[in-house]
Amino acid sequence: MAIWDDLAVARVFDLAQPYFTGMPHYPTHPPFLFSLTKQHGDSVGPQGHSSAADAIALGSHVGTHIDALCHFSHDGKLHGGHPVAGLQSYAGGLRQYSIDTIPPILRRGILLDLIGGGPPLSAGHEVTPEELAEAARDLQIRRGDIVLLRTGWGRYYSDPRQFINDTNCPGPGRAGAEWLSAAGIFAAGSDTVAFEKVPAPAMPVHVHLLVESGIHIIECLNLEELAEERVREFLFIGAPLKIRGATGAPLRPLALVP
Amino acid sequence: MAIWDDLAVARVFDLAQPYFTGMPHYPTHPPFLFSLTKQHGDSVGPQGHSSAADAIALGSHVGTHIDALCHFSHDGKLHGGHPVAGLQSYAGGLRQYSIDTIPPILRRGILLDLIGGGPPLSAGHEVTPEELAEAARDLQIRRGDIVLLRTGWGRYYSDPRQFINDTNCPGPGRAGAEWLSAAGIFAAGSDTVAFEKVPAPAMPVHVHLLVESGIHIIECLNLEELAEERVREFLFIGAPLKIRGATGAPLRPLALVP
Amino acid sequence: MAIWDDLAVARVFDLAQPYFTGMPHYPTHPPFLFSLTKQHGDSVGPQGHSSAADAIALGSHVGTHIDALCHFSHDGKLHGGHPVAGLQSYAGGLRQYSIDTIPPILRRGILLDLIGGGPPLSAGHEVTPEELAEAARDLQIRRGDIVLLRTGWGRYYSDPRQFINDTNCPGPGRAGAEWLSAAGIFAAGSDTVAFEKVPAPAMPVHVHLLVESGIHIIECLNLEELAEERVREFLFIGAPLKIRGATGAPLRPLALVP
Amino acid sequence: MAIWDDLAVARVFDLAQPYFTGMPHYPTHPPFLFSLTKQHGDSVGPQGHSSAADAIALGSHVGTHIDALCHFSHDGKLHGGHPVAGLQSYAGGLRQYSIDTIPPILRRGILLDLIGGGPPLSAGHEVTPEELAEAARDLQIRRGDIVLLRTGWGRYYSDPRQFINDTNCPGPGRAGAEWLSAAGIFAAGSDTVAFEKVPAPAMPVHVHLLVESGIHIIECLNLEELAEERVREFLFIGAPLKIRGATGAPLRPLALVP
Repeated sequence: MAIWDDLAVARVFDLAQPYFTGMPHYPTHPPFLFSLTKQHGDSVGPQGHSSAADAIALGSHVGTHIDALCHFSHDGKLHGGHPVAGLQSYAGGLRQYSIDTIPPILRRGILLDLIGGGPPLSAGHEVTPEELAEAARDLQIRRGDIVLLRTGWGRYYSDPRQFINDTNCPGPGRAGAEWLSAAGIFAAGSDTVAFEKVPAPAMPVHVHLLVESGIHIIECLNLEELAEERVREFLFIGAPLKIRGATGAPLRPLALVP
Repeated sequence: MAIWDDLAVARVFDLAQPYFTGMPHYPTHPPFLFSLTKQHGDSVGPQGHSSAADAIALGSHVGTHIDALCHFSHDGKLHGGHPVAGLQSYAGGLRQYSIDTIPPILRRGILLDLIGGGPPLSAGHEVTPEELAEAARDLQIRRGDIVLLRTGWGRYYSDPRQFINDTNCPGPGRAGAEWLSAAGIFAAGSDTVAFEKVPAPAMPVHVHLLVESGIHIIECLNLEELAEERVREFLFIGAPLKIRGATGAPLRPLALVP
Repeated sequence: MAIWDDLAVARVFDLAQPYFTGMPHYPTHPPFLFSLTKQHGDSVGPQGHSSAADAIALGSHVGTHIDALCHFSHDGKLHGGHPVAGLQSYAGGLRQYSIDTIPPILRRGILLDLIGGGPPLSAGHEVTPEELAEAARDLQIRRGDIVLLRTGWGRYYSDPRQFINDTNCPGPGRAGAEWLSAAGIFAAGSDTVAFEKVPAPAMPVHVHLLVESGIHIIECLNLEELAEERVREFLFIGAPLKIRGATGAPLRPLALVP
Repeated sequence: MAIWDDLAVARVFDLAQPYFTGMPHYPTHPPFLFSLTKQHGDSVGPQGHSSAADAIALGSHVGTHIDALCHFSHDGKLHGGHPVAGLQSYAGGLRQYSIDTIPPILRRGILLDLIGGGPPLSAGHEVTPEELAEAARDLQIRRGDIVLLRTGWGRYYSDPRQFINDTNCPGPGRAGAEWLSAAGIFAAGSDTVAFEKVPAPAMPVHVHLLVESGIHIIECLNLEELAEERVREFLFIGAPLKIRGATGAPLRPLALVP
């Protein structure tokens, strides 16, 4: 039986949030801009056709996106100890671990639902290793997995002020990040604007995952539907825009449930 | 056996071209812009971390992308006969058949290799139904399939002037488009900047597929590796950036071969 | 008496059109995009302040703007016979005659009102040397002047479709351009999207002024108020955004009448 | 004698810094992006012409720019006590005191050179009323003037990291701002990225000038040439890009010295 027949009966969950003018974005990243370049009827062809098209501008870390390992450095070094000096320029971006070097991702995904039927986590909540372990009960996290944390904040997405909350959001601290990295996962993600309890001046989760552990981070996911259907294990499929030299890029990840 | 185990042994082909400053784009669509927003070291955190990030701007039909059905109209009407008047605005885009209404695409894909080991098609070459039928020999195209045409122009991508060629490129004409639509496919694509022999003042292929037939168009694909491996049938996976109201959007499509 | 006292009694006319989402733009130039980056209240400071700011994207020839001499070439050469090969790159723009090399412009300006109290020129109207001479009656055009042509199309600006008119607009042809260049002016401008009767496949006015004559072109001016007040001679003040390597840039020109 | 003859012998100083990829920008504002949209030779017309053009994207407060009064609010109110609620939207910007409501500026300008032939002010230096008074000795600041402070940081502009300095820059505090507002000036400006000693969590200078006093702020000026020529009094000419609803906009200000 061909694989597309298998997939024909699989359930597909869309884990991406939409892009729209006024959408939430971390304050240091450029916002999303949109306009048609032309409207239908502005120009009409010899046999009556017309077309419309669009222009956009955005930060590469705006909307549902994945961080390249080169997004963060520590003591002047990228993951693997590469000194960042000489590896970066404004016009060309980064020459090591940039987003275009991430191969398409098709991996086992695990949803750690931190709230179940309850309300979203409070802004000041630090997700602990114990909470992660409890959410992962009966599931074995394996090397190379994608682990996604549901805080419930995905439902705030349509209200940018509530979602960004002046960058006060729940998430793991260093202890939670270490619990995740110990499992040797490929990437960790969440439904918040930062995979980290913020504000966090030292950004320990980003440093530990990206720089120390070589683990990618995915942010601004929509995990509501997955949680509603009580899916905990799935096939994660995603591939970021292949932007040469970029430190991150939008992606529209999917979860497949056989 | 779980689906990820099946996939673990599948070959994955990346059908997307990269984004970079100076990359090719159809002249009426805005080009791709890129810069870091900050470099590593511009700001250093209390425990020695630093980060870099990026900003981009582009036309939504630039790079490997898919057209929404609302991209074209004919005699003032979209696919399905919807009068476009009242359905569009510069700030909001289109309110019918916009790109964010396309569900994630996981479908059988067919590669019609029009050149095999030969040179790329010449700029003035119109791909005929006979050529399509010959390339599809022994394969049955089914309703809902994704059919991709390889002209060989994908290898010109790194030379924008050669790839755009002052918008003189090979592709199907109306007859070829009708051969495709007769099979009831979901989308047709190619490795050229336009799925149409251009210049074509009346754009008959876009009108026939998008407006008359409700068939999506994918452009600027990289089909070279797929052709090299003589893959003709595969699982196509792709999901465009979910831009509210847009007439098209970037995507990074994958081909899976079990 | 100080110059600012002189100016205090001068009338100042604003010759720029506004920037707004959906504003008119020549189809091959990227449109104007706008969004706030943040709203008041998204973040509130320790003593109650808040701020809002904006992001924009646009083609450098969108809105009221001036063309650098390097905007056009002929037979592979820029003004002065410089071969353009080797002088350009996507990331860096042009290295000869770019917009940032134009010093601030403070020069005598002349309004040639082609319609007076009548209706705007029709789309197919080519402005002839005779019409220019008639509009310039009693005025001597001198070397270094700025000569602005009023066609009346400035009043269409708020209706992008009418203003662009599928790029069918009135303007001078080569004969008119030669009449202007004979006077040795510094720049010529108009209230249309192109200083040229368009469509014009060979773009003779742009070639004659920019390449052959070294005369700048200013487009999308608002000349309505100036005409209403029957001003024909004024001090033109303008300086484009100093964009390194650019072929054109927005400016907000002023006319001063002592 | 006509005004343009007067001006013909005036010295003109360009107070704007250039725009270029990698240029300095306050971290919360989007960076400047640039690319050609096409190169000369990509398309050649019937008689041998070709053209190149550009696309840009940027924050409206990037580069030499002026703040609209609506850029800041205090306790939810704009200058004049207007509650900001209901006056703002991401797509439309601000409906009160936006940048497009500032008429062209032609006013007496005063340079307060805080360093003379000495080195630039240190990053932690707060400019005091006494320093301002000393720099203004023998000059009377009048209602409606433009007062520009030279700290010497303009010469750092070509080194973005030094110019931004992790947003540690010299400037006035509230006391200096009050000294300036007492004179009833129209705008105050400087050669730094912020007209304020930063970091300043409560941003007292911006609040006092924009919100409490209705005085505009101009930032990122190049005052080096003016200072070198020991010009202290001049005609300031400037007009920002007329962006509907924006909280700030680029401008290229000039200083004229009769």
